[in-house]
Amino acid sequence: MTDEIPRPVYFLSDSTGITAETLGNTLLTQFPFNNFDRTTVPFIMTVEQAQAVVDTIDELAARGPAPIVFSTAVNGDIRRTLARCKGTMVDLIGTNVGQLERALGTPASGEPGRAHGLGNAARYQSRMTAVEYAMEHDDGQSLRALEKAQIILVAPSRCGKTPTTMYLALQHGIFAANFPLVDEDFEQEGLPKPLRPLVGKCFGLTSNPLRLSQVRTERRRGSPYASLRQCGFELRSAELLYVSHGIPYLNSASVSVEEMAATILQRMQLRH
Amino acid sequence: MTDEIPRPVYFLSDSTGITAETLGNTLLTQFPFNNFDRTTVPFIMTVEQAQAVVDTIDELAARGPAPIVFSTAVNGDIRRTLARCKGTMVDLIGTNVGQLERALGTPASGEPGRAHGLGNAARYQSRMTAVEYAMEHDDGQSLRALEKAQIILVAPSRCGKTPTTMYLALQHGIFAANFPLVDEDFEQEGLPKPLRPLVGKCFGLTSNPLRLSQVRTERRRGSPYASLRQCGFELRSAELLYVSHGIPYLNSASVSVEEMAATILQRMQLRH
Repeated sequence: MTDEIPRPVYFLSDSTGITAETLGNTLLTQFPFNNFDRTTVPFIMTVEQAQAVVDTIDELAARGPAPIVFSTAVNGDIRRTLARCKGTMVDLIGTNVGQLERALGTPASGEPGRAHGLGNAARYQSRMTAVEYAMEHDDGQSLRALEKAQIILVAPSRCGKTPTTMYLALQHGIFAANFPLVDEDFEQEGLPKPLRPLVGKCFGLTSNPLRLSQVRTERRRGSPYASLRQCGFELRSAELLYVSHGIPYLNSASVSVEEMAATILQRMQLRH
Repeated sequence: MTDEIPRPVYFLSDSTGITAETLGNTLLTQFPFNNFDRTTVPFIMTVEQAQAVVDTIDELAARGPAPIVFSTAVNGDIRRTLARCKGTMVDLIGTNVGQLERALGTPASGEPGRAHGLGNAARYQSRMTAVEYAMEHDDGQSLRALEKAQIILVAPSRCGKTPTTMYLALQHGIFAANFPLVDEDFEQEGLPKPLRPLVGKCFGLTSNPLRLSQVRTERRRGSPYASLRQCGFELRSAELLYVSHGIPYLNSASVSVEEMAATILQRMQLRH
């Protein structure tokens, strides 16, 4: 199918476009077809802007397969304008809002979406504070206020601690620190000292030796640090440490940060 | 309405639940009602697990207002089980997938969603590399490989550089650095030296003096740094610098990191 014309896909929104992209892409992963040409048009605020997008879509539709269009526009005039396009329109708000109006017994506001706006100011501020905390406590840099962490990710180097910590902070406002396990930690008895009073907040990451060796090779080719032998040793030692201290852990080798974050929130019961 | 029983809202998924939360919350922001009690149940992998969730929802429905349920489950058996619950079921996959099947001329796979899985390994890896780059180049820490940045966020302290940079890296795989503007930068002529050859990659942030003063006060109460006078001076000087060098900029005072990121991607034409 690679020599076919890519199917145009549009994500349209009167706000950031994040919701349209998220559900649109989720729906598209349900199809084996993978030759999509994606365009996001956020902040469509006027009927004129909407009409310009419709013109582009209609032009494409006249020349090839009809574009697939995911829209989260909520304003009535903008929605009606977009609905006239010659693409396959998947109206993510219009399709579902009626059911909610009936369930909640009140009409939808039709105000431009601010699902990804500041929303609840206190909650937004707590996410920003959490990012700051995560930056300060990355890779065991600072042990100050480590007890304020809601979770401490523990793992050997390059198992995914940093991006997972950032994701937990930025998306979920979780106070997350992370702490690297190194050779000296495996030589001594028990947990690294700063973690001992906080064992209940620890969550371990591990990986597969081959995968870890590949990732470390990209950083330091041919080093002992990247060797399969060293990676195997560190991962075995780390897992032993997790098991002997009752620290829950997961293997990061074939899961994404989003999947790790969802798993960690669930297992540590950190969902608000 | 605060003394009413909160309306239970469930986000159900056979994957991370991110998509269900995203579209569900977007839809809920369309209603003035704001007394929701949200629960996310990710990774529903078996009919038994689905039935356990249905039992919980039915119990709540028997005692109070029917829960609102957003589901992105794709497996047929799991969807049919969840569909029997006594809540208001908003089936985000089922509602829209038929239209896409017709447009694409092929049936949906019904495989559990991996929209937030590793997906395209190269794209995932580039996001992780971008996070690493952003960590190294936060707050002008390292000028090494600054020319590799796709964007350099420039602003006085506490205008939102760091979380916006992290968001661009983590969600969009953008190589983003950020660079603080300080008093010495305003005293000299022109842009700070490291930025001069890279002015085309710069994007400025500004804020409102009062808002900035509040944010800085949280960090250092009563300091000259947090004073309204100093904040006003820095913001005016920064804006002058942006304008005189043709650097696009936005005011971060009342927008979220998601909105800033969407605006920056659009204005710098960084959408893939």
